Amino acid sequence: MRLDQIRELIKPLDPDLLQKAQARLDNLTKPPGSLGRLEELARQVVGVTGRLEPQVWPKLVCTFAADHGVAAEGVSAFPQEVTHQMVLNFLAGGAAINVLARFAGAEVWVVDVGVAHDFGPRQGLLDRKIRPGTANLAQGPAMSRAEAQAAVQVGLDLANQAAERGFKALATGEMGIANTTAAAAIASVLSGRPAGQVTGRGTGLDQAGLARKTAVIERALEVNRPDPADPLDVLTKVGGLEIGAIMGFCLGGAAARVPVVIDGFIATAGALLAVKFCPAAAEYLVAAHRSVEIGHQVMLDEMGLKPLVDLDLRLGEGTGAALGLNLMEAAVRLLREMATFSSAGVSDKRTP
Amino acid sequence: MRLDQIRELIKPLDPDLLQKAQARLDNLTKPPGSLGRLEELARQVVGVTGRLEPQVWPKLVCTFAADHGVAAEGVSAFPQEVTHQMVLNFLAGGAAINVLARFAGAEVWVVDVGVAHDFGPRQGLLDRKIRPGTANLAQGPAMSRAEAQAAVQVGLDLANQAAERGFKALATGEMGIANTTAAAAIASVLSGRPAGQVTGRGTGLDQAGLARKTAVIERALEVNRPDPADPLDVLTKVGGLEIGAIMGFCLGGAAARVPVVIDGFIATAGALLAVKFCPAAAEYLVAAHRSVEIGHQVMLDEMGLKPLVDLDLRLGEGTGAALGLNLMEAAVRLLREMATFSSAGVSDKRTP
Repeated sequence: MRLDQIRELIKPLDPDLLQKAQARLDNLTKPPGSLGRLEELARQVVGVTGRLEPQVWPKLVCTFAADHGVAAEGVSAFPQEVTHQMVLNFLAGGAAINVLARFAGAEVWVVDVGVAHDFGPRQGLLDRKIRPGTANLAQGPAMSRAEAQAAVQVGLDLANQAAERGFKALATGEMGIANTTAAAAIASVLSGRPAGQVTGRGTGLDQAGLARKTAVIERALEVNRPDPADPLDVLTKVGGLEIGAIMGFCLGGAAARVPVVIDGFIATAGALLAVKFCPAAAEYLVAAHRSVEIGHQVMLDEMGLKPLVDLDLRLGEGTGAALGLNLMEAAVRLLREMATFSSAGVSDKRTP
Repeated sequence: MRLDQIRELIKPLDPDLLQKAQARLDNLTKPPGSLGRLEELARQVVGVTGRLEPQVWPKLVCTFAADHGVAAEGVSAFPQEVTHQMVLNFLAGGAAINVLARFAGAEVWVVDVGVAHDFGPRQGLLDRKIRPGTANLAQGPAMSRAEAQAAVQVGLDLANQAAERGFKALATGEMGIANTTAAAAIASVLSGRPAGQVTGRGTGLDQAGLARKTAVIERALEVNRPDPADPLDVLTKVGGLEIGAIMGFCLGGAAARVPVVIDGFIATAGALLAVKFCPAAAEYLVAAHRSVEIGHQVMLDEMGLKPLVDLDLRLGEGTGAALGLNLMEAAVRLLREMATFSSAGVSDKRTP
């Protein structure tokens, strides 16, 4: 599956099927609509998968890691070495995403798309390194267009492999010191809002750090002038390698008719690039949560996605998406396992 | 354990212990505070249980069912017979609460505190019937003070039995046609707000039905004049048998130092009665979700509780609480299972 074929492969959801799903939900032993967002989610999964009794397990979280040259501008509260240290933590099973993925019954694939560290051969690490970190986007393009395409292809291929191996629900995660800077730049370009409206504190910047980060993003947009009508140009100039992979992962999941649960701010930047590239992809995405990062809601609004929960998370890695996988399973189990009014002998007659 | 002893048994959480929990959370491999509400929840569970590595499993949802004489006023979209039909559905495992409890790994206890139906001996049903439904609270007290006390004692006893049997997390659920009317009356009395500000559409009233329901509650408050300073008087006059049991269940859980996850509008009315009776109990409660019912937030505010999720649920039974049990497990697993900065070799030095 290649990027230039993807638009033909992703179709809008079938309205007849969505209606059938709703009819089934309305026949379950509960007041119509009383399960709220869980009903919407179950309906969406029916539409995505094309099955009236869908299955959203086994589950996979794909956590893409890469470094960012813009870290040199002092835009993160943590040093760049933390990217590779956290990758090792993922592989050892000690990070938040490992805990929450285990909890959700999901496997975790850790993918090096561009970490500035030589891991050597490492059990469990998927080596898809395109380059050891991006260039500093405040001084020029983060990468070449060919590298951006290659990053997207990494995600496309992994989503396809996951679908072929039988995974029925995908979730996106990421790790990359300074990647909220790239994500905020993307949010600014694709929403048309000034950097100040979409830039937050990341892992914990103070007021001065936030001002510096915002100025860096303004400079990056000025230097690079990314074309908002061309998502690959935006990715090339102010993106990140893991963000490109997430863009591809979203498109690949949609093309394979597997729902993709997106995590927080950075993953959503990748998802938004995917949706700008192919608007129909939005219907295949589930927004797990609303991040503390102020630009997150802006991007979700651009895609018409409403987050499932708001738990003040700002960690990334796929942690919010793991919780979303869990809620998606709950929604689907309700659809599959609840009794109907007639089977349970419960009156569905309303009082006059 | 009796109600008149309960105030001595429920102590405020130990601030030293909460601080130790926070120190541990801050040492895990993530930016401080980046797991947001999950960190707060983990900290609370440490305080409630008194253990730095707490356990919130095995889990129990207790679903209390009872009927309401006020159903005769046409305040519900469904007929009264649905209460006992749904109890049978719970016992057969086909209701939403069964599905979500299974999903959360929780057992369900179904308790008849006052259903207007003779079930006979039924496998799995806990018969604690006090009377076959309350009297019509629009015409006089819903029950006697002795019956109200007995209802509370049912919940207290079950929470104690659950703790003795080793359950480490409790959740409240309910079933009772017309019980949003009783819950709204309680919300009005205990918050001091007019009925119109705390009354919603329940299982699906139209505009005329909502107006009728609001007028019924106004009449009930006028006829009964419950004393807001005396929670048992409020329960007696405008409450419900299942609401009384939930009040007792919350108090019993708190006294046993087991966290109690409260469900939506009706369960929260029971929890609010508990907290008005013993303010320290609030620290032992976890608000699972914000219901569609407008009075729900009002009651949560009275207790200083912030709901974990807002999924437009309005079903009851304990469904939201089951999701809350799940999130509580996620929070505790993060606390217990994540690596620390030093154990994982991750730099916790901030960049200057």
